[in-house]
Amino acid sequence: MSKIAIINGPNLNLLGIRNPKIYGNLSLEDILKHLKKTFKQHEIQSFQSNHEGVIIDTLHEAKKWAHGIMINAGAYTHTSYAIRDAIETIEMPCVEIHLSNIYARESFRQLSVLAPVCIGQISGFSANSYELGLRALEMHLQLKKPS
Amino acid sequence: MSKIAIINGPNLNLLGIRNPKIYGNLSLEDILKHLKKTFKQHEIQSFQSNHEGVIIDTLHEAKKWAHGIMINAGAYTHTSYAIRDAIETIEMPCVEIHLSNIYARESFRQLSVLAPVCIGQISGFSANSYELGLRALEMHLQLKKPS
Amino acid sequence: MSKIAIINGPNLNLLGIRNPKIYGNLSLEDILKHLKKTFKQHEIQSFQSNHEGVIIDTLHEAKKWAHGIMINAGAYTHTSYAIRDAIETIEMPCVEIHLSNIYARESFRQLSVLAPVCIGQISGFSANSYELGLRALEMHLQLKKPS
Amino acid sequence: MSKIAIINGPNLNLLGIRNPKIYGNLSLEDILKHLKKTFKQHEIQSFQSNHEGVIIDTLHEAKKWAHGIMINAGAYTHTSYAIRDAIETIEMPCVEIHLSNIYARESFRQLSVLAPVCIGQISGFSANSYELGLRALEMHLQLKKPS
Amino acid sequence: MSKIAIINGPNLNLLGIRNPKIYGNLSLEDILKHLKKTFKQHEIQSFQSNHEGVIIDTLHEAKKWAHGIMINAGAYTHTSYAIRDAIETIEMPCVEIHLSNIYARESFRQLSVLAPVCIGQISGFSANSYELGLRALEMHLQLKKPS
Amino acid sequence: MSKIAIINGPNLNLLGIRNPKIYGNLSLEDILKHLKKTFKQHEIQSFQSNHEGVIIDTLHEAKKWAHGIMINAGAYTHTSYAIRDAIETIEMPCVEIHLSNIYARESFRQLSVLAPVCIGQISGFSANSYELGLRALEMHLQLKKPS
Amino acid sequence: MSKIAIINGPNLNLLGIRNPKIYGNLSLEDILKHLKKTFKQHEIQSFQSNHEGVIIDTLHEAKKWAHGIMINAGAYTHTSYAIRDAIETIEMPCVEIHLSNIYARESFRQLSVLAPVCIGQISGFSANSYELGLRALEMHLQLKKPS
Amino acid sequence: MSKIAIINGPNLNLLGIRNPKIYGNLSLEDILKHLKKTFKQHEIQSFQSNHEGVIIDTLHEAKKWAHGIMINAGAYTHTSYAIRDAIETIEMPCVEIHLSNIYARESFRQLSVLAPVCIGQISGFSANSYELGLRALEMHLQLKKPS
Amino acid sequence: MSKIAIINGPNLNLLGIRNPKIYGNLSLEDILKHLKKTFKQHEIQSFQSNHEGVIIDTLHEAKKWAHGIMINAGAYTHTSYAIRDAIETIEMPCVEIHLSNIYARESFRQLSVLAPVCIGQISGFSANSYELGLRALEMHLQLKKPS
Amino acid sequence: MSKIAIINGPNLNLLGIRNPKIYGNLSLEDILKHLKKTFKQHEIQSFQSNHEGVIIDTLHEAKKWAHGIMINAGAYTHTSYAIRDAIETIEMPCVEIHLSNIYARESFRQLSVLAPVCIGQISGFSANSYELGLRALEMHLQLKKPS
Amino acid sequence: MSKIAIINGPNLNLLGIRNPKIYGNLSLEDILKHLKKTFKQHEIQSFQSNHEGVIIDTLHEAKKWAHGIMINAGAYTHTSYAIRDAIETIEMPCVEIHLSNIYARESFRQLSVLAPVCIGQISGFSANSYELGLRALEMHLQLKKPS
Amino acid sequence: MSKIAIINGPNLNLLGIRNPKIYGNLSLEDILKHLKKTFKQHEIQSFQSNHEGVIIDTLHEAKKWAHGIMINAGAYTHTSYAIRDAIETIEMPCVEIHLSNIYARESFRQLSVLAPVCIGQISGFSANSYELGLRALEMHLQLKKPS
Repeated sequence: MSKIAIINGPNLNLLGIRNPKIYGNLSLEDILKHLKKTFKQHEIQSFQSNHEGVIIDTLHEAKKWAHGIMINAGAYTHTSYAIRDAIETIEMPCVEIHLSNIYARESFRQLSVLAPVCIGQISGFSANSYELGLRALEMHLQLKKPS
Repeated sequence: MSKIAIINGPNLNLLGIRNPKIYGNLSLEDILKHLKKTFKQHEIQSFQSNHEGVIIDTLHEAKKWAHGIMINAGAYTHTSYAIRDAIETIEMPCVEIHLSNIYARESFRQLSVLAPVCIGQISGFSANSYELGLRALEMHLQLKKPS
Repeated sequence: MSKIAIINGPNLNLLGIRNPKIYGNLSLEDILKHLKKTFKQHEIQSFQSNHEGVIIDTLHEAKKWAHGIMINAGAYTHTSYAIRDAIETIEMPCVEIHLSNIYARESFRQLSVLAPVCIGQISGFSANSYELGLRALEMHLQLKKPS
Repeated sequence: MSKIAIINGPNLNLLGIRNPKIYGNLSLEDILKHLKKTFKQHEIQSFQSNHEGVIIDTLHEAKKWAHGIMINAGAYTHTSYAIRDAIETIEMPCVEIHLSNIYARESFRQLSVLAPVCIGQISGFSANSYELGLRALEMHLQLKKPS
Repeated sequence: MSKIAIINGPNLNLLGIRNPKIYGNLSLEDILKHLKKTFKQHEIQSFQSNHEGVIIDTLHEAKKWAHGIMINAGAYTHTSYAIRDAIETIEMPCVEIHLSNIYARESFRQLSVLAPVCIGQISGFSANSYELGLRALEMHLQLKKPS
Repeated sequence: MSKIAIINGPNLNLLGIRNPKIYGNLSLEDILKHLKKTFKQHEIQSFQSNHEGVIIDTLHEAKKWAHGIMINAGAYTHTSYAIRDAIETIEMPCVEIHLSNIYARESFRQLSVLAPVCIGQISGFSANSYELGLRALEMHLQLKKPS
Repeated sequence: MSKIAIINGPNLNLLGIRNPKIYGNLSLEDILKHLKKTFKQHEIQSFQSNHEGVIIDTLHEAKKWAHGIMINAGAYTHTSYAIRDAIETIEMPCVEIHLSNIYARESFRQLSVLAPVCIGQISGFSANSYELGLRALEMHLQLKKPS
Repeated sequence: MSKIAIINGPNLNLLGIRNPKIYGNLSLEDILKHLKKTFKQHEIQSFQSNHEGVIIDTLHEAKKWAHGIMINAGAYTHTSYAIRDAIETIEMPCVEIHLSNIYARESFRQLSVLAPVCIGQISGFSANSYELGLRALEMHLQLKKPS
Repeated sequence: MSKIAIINGPNLNLLGIRNPKIYGNLSLEDILKHLKKTFKQHEIQSFQSNHEGVIIDTLHEAKKWAHGIMINAGAYTHTSYAIRDAIETIEMPCVEIHLSNIYARESFRQLSVLAPVCIGQISGFSANSYELGLRALEMHLQLKKPS
Repeated sequence: MSKIAIINGPNLNLLGIRNPKIYGNLSLEDILKHLKKTFKQHEIQSFQSNHEGVIIDTLHEAKKWAHGIMINAGAYTHTSYAIRDAIETIEMPCVEIHLSNIYARESFRQLSVLAPVCIGQISGFSANSYELGLRALEMHLQLKKPS
Repeated sequence: MSKIAIINGPNLNLLGIRNPKIYGNLSLEDILKHLKKTFKQHEIQSFQSNHEGVIIDTLHEAKKWAHGIMINAGAYTHTSYAIRDAIETIEMPCVEIHLSNIYARESFRQLSVLAPVCIGQISGFSANSYELGLRALEMHLQLKKPS
Repeated sequence: MSKIAIINGPNLNLLGIRNPKIYGNLSLEDILKHLKKTFKQHEIQSFQSNHEGVIIDTLHEAKKWAHGIMINAGAYTHTSYAIRDAIETIEMPCVEIHLSNIYARESFRQLSVLAPVCIGQISGFSANSYELGLRALEMHLQLKKPS
């Protein structure tokens, strides 16, 4: 059993409302409910904030209790070297996810400044990106643990 | 009668003090007083914050009560894809204004990442930009309403 | 009372016909009729030409009779340093307007070489951009005049 | 039978004289004579001007009488967004031609700002580019007409 | 039950040998054996070629028998517009995977020309990227099927 | 009478199927049948391959039997300096054609690395590009031949 | 005696923990203790926040009580035009410092958007950068004061 | 004795009025009067137009009567490939001059698209640039003539 | 005695025919004959292919029998990250050669994507580049071997 | 006690004369006198040359007698990879200083090619930069020495 | 009467020998002899060096005796910010000349880093550039002197 | 027998000391001793200087006595257009060498401004680059001489 922090960035509180053709109809709550049901063996805590600083604080906090991080940093993905430094500073495995295929959209969305400090990235599978990301993190954490 | 949210970004709380040759002598309060007198027929609420996250939260809130937005996002104009996503997500008419002519200044000020999701932009008329922006929003909202 | 020259660049003679989704249904004549009715207190003269040279000549002429300029230079906005020099040379207040939001279109339309020598820019409010531009110019000229 | 306007841009009045290794020995008159003989079934009118504005005026005029356009805009090919807007505004099929292979020359000649609003482009076959261009336009117009 | 083609590009035949710190110790055969065991309910066929043309031929063939594609195009990821066109032409759901986190490596590896025509991308989980990719494809195909 | 090699690059074997709005409904076979009927006086051989190497081999072979080349290199147009070198090496007249107007599409399609070594380029007339290209090549070869 | 505000940006609360090879072993508290001992004659107040908005608020506050500013803005150094505007708005002498030599690291760290509005920059001397920065500010303030 | 055409581009009709710190106090007439007095041995004709097309026409005309050209193309210097082609087409010695030092001004003024087809360039000596340019042309023409 | 694979890329089968001013008059066979005579003490096998995939296969094969590689990858030098990965994967000393001085030619030829994974590069000595390359490889291999 | 070489580059011999608003009124001699008084415990030797080669020779010499280097390379800061290599070759601690804030000036002054091989950089405190630089070097050398 | 320093940069000692098609047949001595004869009323001293440092030293020296400078800095024109700073530091009128038209040559020759600190530039009139440059300097100095 | 000048640029006097992992353990003297032994039949003179100007002077001198040049210009390779012009001016065969593989290092080292005027380049074989370079020059000179 692992403890996992899921961190959601700006505007994801409106998920399900915003541009459903791109982001799907599910709300963040719907997705989390599904994840908790699917990954019963893990302790999952989810956070959402529109504030870059709060996301950094949350990453710092996570260092104290969690084994791994899954992050969907929304638009901060493309600009926040401060979040990148936070991920690097806490030295924990972090999986980066995106609902939409960021490489099929506007050019500014095609650069993730977080990617180089994450273990990997999953992009484009709408709500499924969350489940795949947790699966990826789970696999990564298992390799690290003594059996 | 329309309900309008005016959103002011970083450092605009010091308006009237900062570089008066560029930004003019009026404080934000002076401008708002003038606007409320001039646009008596509308309900106007004004917000100012130096926090990107608070601006996003305020945009989300505005979706619940306002008919339109006028935004002067200060320096976040040039970098905040998160505010841009917030404007796009709430799907409300938004007019972008600037006190100074941003196209006659440093090169970094000449890119507005918000412009593509706003209906239009007014730049360079100092305090008058606020009155012109409200006028533009009013005209836009009238077209949408049944007489 | 002020004397104002409105200068319209290439293809604006076909306004109302060209791509109405972007530029609206009103012809240039419709717009001017509306402006003259709305700004009765001013003397307004309007010019349209598809010739860069004629636009420069007209700007030079305007120096002799007008108090201010409003210009929609069409596609010359993006390339004509000669028109820019003309505006700078005559040293008169000039407001730049655009029917469409040029920052939400092709990248070549997102650069105005005229903007740095104009007092300000209004972009994206279709036919209303003309009224807003005159309003902006009027406000600017009032500041300059003795009461 | 179709009515076709051939529009020739700057310096093409000196064809046959200018750099014959690149542009060939035939004058514009020679080429037109050959075209009229070859395409007897169509009504062809040819125009040449060194003035960007006149080319735009001519395009606007063509909308009133012609079924299609063939344009060799000379050096305006590389810079004139005003001509591009004119072609787009009149909404008529337009074939772009070049005598020389513009992609084998100076880098500034390798960008056609007109290409995106034309149906197609023919480049590099010297005087034959004119015949091929008319052939292409003819084929295009035939598809549009009821038999 | 779905039929799935797994397509592996250049140098992946040497997997397990090449730079194990980046690509891991498992051979392509090891990975496939694991996948077939894990996804027994699907018919999986795997292909590997160092030839861009063979990869295109294989994609064309897959259109005739498969429901979905998972591709690890190796270095062709970064340059092959021909493979991109093949994926787009066959109009089948395609998941792009990478063993290494391509965004933490040399700059040329950070552009995937295939990404815009794939449904999504998974990058950085070494051999696990294959399992996660199949999982993602399976989820995608289930949404499309009648229950 | 001339001997002409028509060389078709990747994905053109699926012509008529792929994105018909861009590429039209005719298959490569349909087009060739039409060409052979139209250009009875010439010996035409057509080749298609998805393999860059096969296209180069075919160009080398053509040197032994053909008088001219018409090439639609598909996506290799934009990247293959090896095909470019092959065309330059065999020193035969080569006409480059494209079904779609490559200058009205994605930016990567707007560079042809082959163009500088071809005599000319025809782009945007769908299936007609083939007929126009042969016409252009025929005209070019006639100039070279003794009457 | 001068009053000096030391402002520390994101992730500096974890100093001593984060990548000690680059940032050293001392915590922010250790450094401040040393500074207060070394610069007894001055009143020093230190702030740290991961929130861009809080840093701006703090700069605005400092205008009311401090004579000078020393700032280590962490990753906001590279992107925050809002902090830059705040420094410029309050019109106080500001010294920029960095623990690591930002010009020997990733390219994104080599641009400071704050530098043009600071009096000078000290970069690369780990914890000593703080002492050197205060020394520099002290020298600067002495020049301004009447003896 | 030589016949020389002096061609002046846009806004030079306002010389002496426009920004005298950059362009000096002399009008174009003043300068020409001085030139005619200084170069009595030559026949000098001067032209000024704000129209790119007229400048091209004038260059074409000059081919019929003049031995050399001196051109100050104003802002067309930086953009007019059409004027460049005209200079190249008429194959006459052409000297390019500028009143101001274009390399000490805005970046757009630092590129002359005409320079590569002129024999040389003189920039920065205000009204003296005209005299120096004629001197340079005179020297050049003398070398070409039989004594 | 060492075993050495010489790998020749696209169009080198036509060496001696292609542009002799740049590439010289010798055929690939002539060069190989000379090499085998000069380096009798080594076992040399030479390969040529126009197919990128075949070159990769050949590199993989060489791992099984050769001690070192000399490669002239022709135009694939400039684009093939797949060949680069192959060279890196097989972890054998590889010398890169070019007949022409690639740094004195078109800009696209001035980038070798292979160079960073080769031990060194020899460029510009026509057929002598082959002999010099083998000499360089021989020297390199001698250092590695026990005497 | 340490031995320190101060190396001053081109035009610093004219310090105090050159642009005093940017560089201050003190001559290099004034500054050195002050430094020697302030850092009596160290042996300081200062060099100035306008010759890049002499600066390199001096760095090589310093390796034989000094413990550390402080360099103000003037304009060679921005271009001299040869000086950079010299600093790297001699493997001694080197502090880079600038009188003016190079990041608030012309863009060419904002790149220091020396910075990546120096321990740190101090920029913008006019003559004080020298004292701060020595202080920084002294602190650095103390860490290296046994007490 | 004025005292004028003519400063010649690298490789100009070989003038007359180097590439005569570009630089002419006259040696530097020939040119100077001609200048001294033509400008008898002035005291002219000429210097040539291949050393950047010597050129800077010579500029510094010139400040002590000369009224003006004419410089042909050869290839240092394109890279030497140190010479630029020297010209700016001595605050004397400086005319920049070039034998060849640098704007019609390789792209690296089209940037003069000296131009922004010179009064003007003369380029392309071979040996005549020297005479024209002196003429320009003479005119400039006359304006400054009391009559 | 040929006379050959070997010219070594900045910091090569410290060869064997500087970064031996990149440049090897041999000093320049060691290398020269080996070369003189190996190429007894030629007269070899070697020069080293850290001064760009001295290198240019030496190239000019070499024109008077040598048949060919081998140059390792160190860091001047990447910036010295003055050395490039010297090589071009003296019109002698020049071979460029580098100890390290410059294409596998920092990006600024990957541009040789000398390469386009040299006959060829050898890079990456440490001390062997010198022997290979002389071999290449010898082969080149033999072709030029009558037997």
